[in-house]
Amino acid sequence: MFITFEGIDGVGKSTQLELLQSWLEESGREVVRTLEPGGTDLGQEIRHLLLHRKGDVSPRAEALLYAADRAHHVATRIRPALEAGKVVLSDRYFDSSVAYQGAARDLDVQEVLNISLWAVGNLVPDLTVLLDLDAEAAIARRSKTGVEPDRLEREKVDFFERARNQFLDLAAQPRFLVVDANLSVDAIQDLIRKRVAAMGLS
Amino acid sequence: MFITFEGIDGVGKSTQLELLQSWLEESGREVVRTLEPGGTDLGQEIRHLLLHRKGDVSPRAEALLYAADRAHHVATRIRPALEAGKVVLSDRYFDSSVAYQGAARDLDVQEVLNISLWAVGNLVPDLTVLLDLDAEAAIARRSKTGVEPDRLEREKVDFFERARNQFLDLAAQPRFLVVDANLSVDAIQDLIRKRVAAMGLS
Repeated sequence: MFITFEGIDGVGKSTQLELLQSWLEESGREVVRTLEPGGTDLGQEIRHLLLHRKGDVSPRAEALLYAADRAHHVATRIRPALEAGKVVLSDRYFDSSVAYQGAARDLDVQEVLNISLWAVGNLVPDLTVLLDLDAEAAIARRSKTGVEPDRLEREKVDFFERARNQFLDLAAQPRFLVVDANLSVDAIQDLIRKRVAAMGLS
Repeated sequence: MFITFEGIDGVGKSTQLELLQSWLEESGREVVRTLEPGGTDLGQEIRHLLLHRKGDVSPRAEALLYAADRAHHVATRIRPALEAGKVVLSDRYFDSSVAYQGAARDLDVQEVLNISLWAVGNLVPDLTVLLDLDAEAAIARRSKTGVEPDRLEREKVDFFERARNQFLDLAAQPRFLVVDANLSVDAIQDLIRKRVAAMGLS
């Protein structure tokens, strides 16, 4: 079972991932919790190039670096874990590239999706949890943390609004659960657990 | 005018690039001589990940890292130089990905080409010089240099033979000039200059 968490920065994905991981482990599941970019050693170096290196990254190079990170992540970590019967929870997956590089950066959404699907050999999540929040609220939450924003987080509000709208378009697919990120942490987790339980995983 | 040099490692591309650069500059052309991977600052870091980092790089990640390097190279260096009327000479370009990642690594040749074409916004060279040599001879030449082989150069002879055969398939396109790399340095350069002159560039 492969579950991904999506949404613009600041919606609370990592909190929800942690809570879901605990719950699954308590029910005896083996869980691999991971993230993109940076879910592997090579991925950590790619993450540095994408988010923390000085100097510009042109838009198509950015999309391809995310895809490279993802290809290595799936080949060396996600697919082996799934084949071993583990549950994989990933903080971001290819929907993020479609939303950020495809829609927000204004590259072609379909091309960005095609490249990601090739990167991962068509491995599509069983469930994608979209935590939805408007861009201004998400940015306000983020700025409260006091953490220095990375290269992508320094983008303006309309960049995140385009990404959010693309996430909502993607969420028409049945694999998505969309949750209002204004709800309390517990209410959100409850909705996620109900959906996961309904899939026979608890 | 955009001229690329292709061929398996050890065929003598850099020698020929240098000689062509001198000749073009003597006739008053402004020349940008560059290479892949690593033609930009970001590209140098990607080159390190591809060739000199410890640890494995899965095949699709490798193909996507080359494409990311190429996307940034074209956007920030090759296209601006061409638009300024300069001649660009590149040691490798997307044919190398088709030959190495597509054919030698046994990924899909057409998919690897499509990703590269997307990376570069369909910028195809005006001339591609293929220096052709059988794989055993190329490896023998390289070992004579005494330089420590990088991650790709450590591959076996059949890897380079598959790449060589793919280069020869690609060379059916009219933009290619195929030169026998067993000829003398001067004879090879002479053939290249004749073709470049015939294109009105001298």
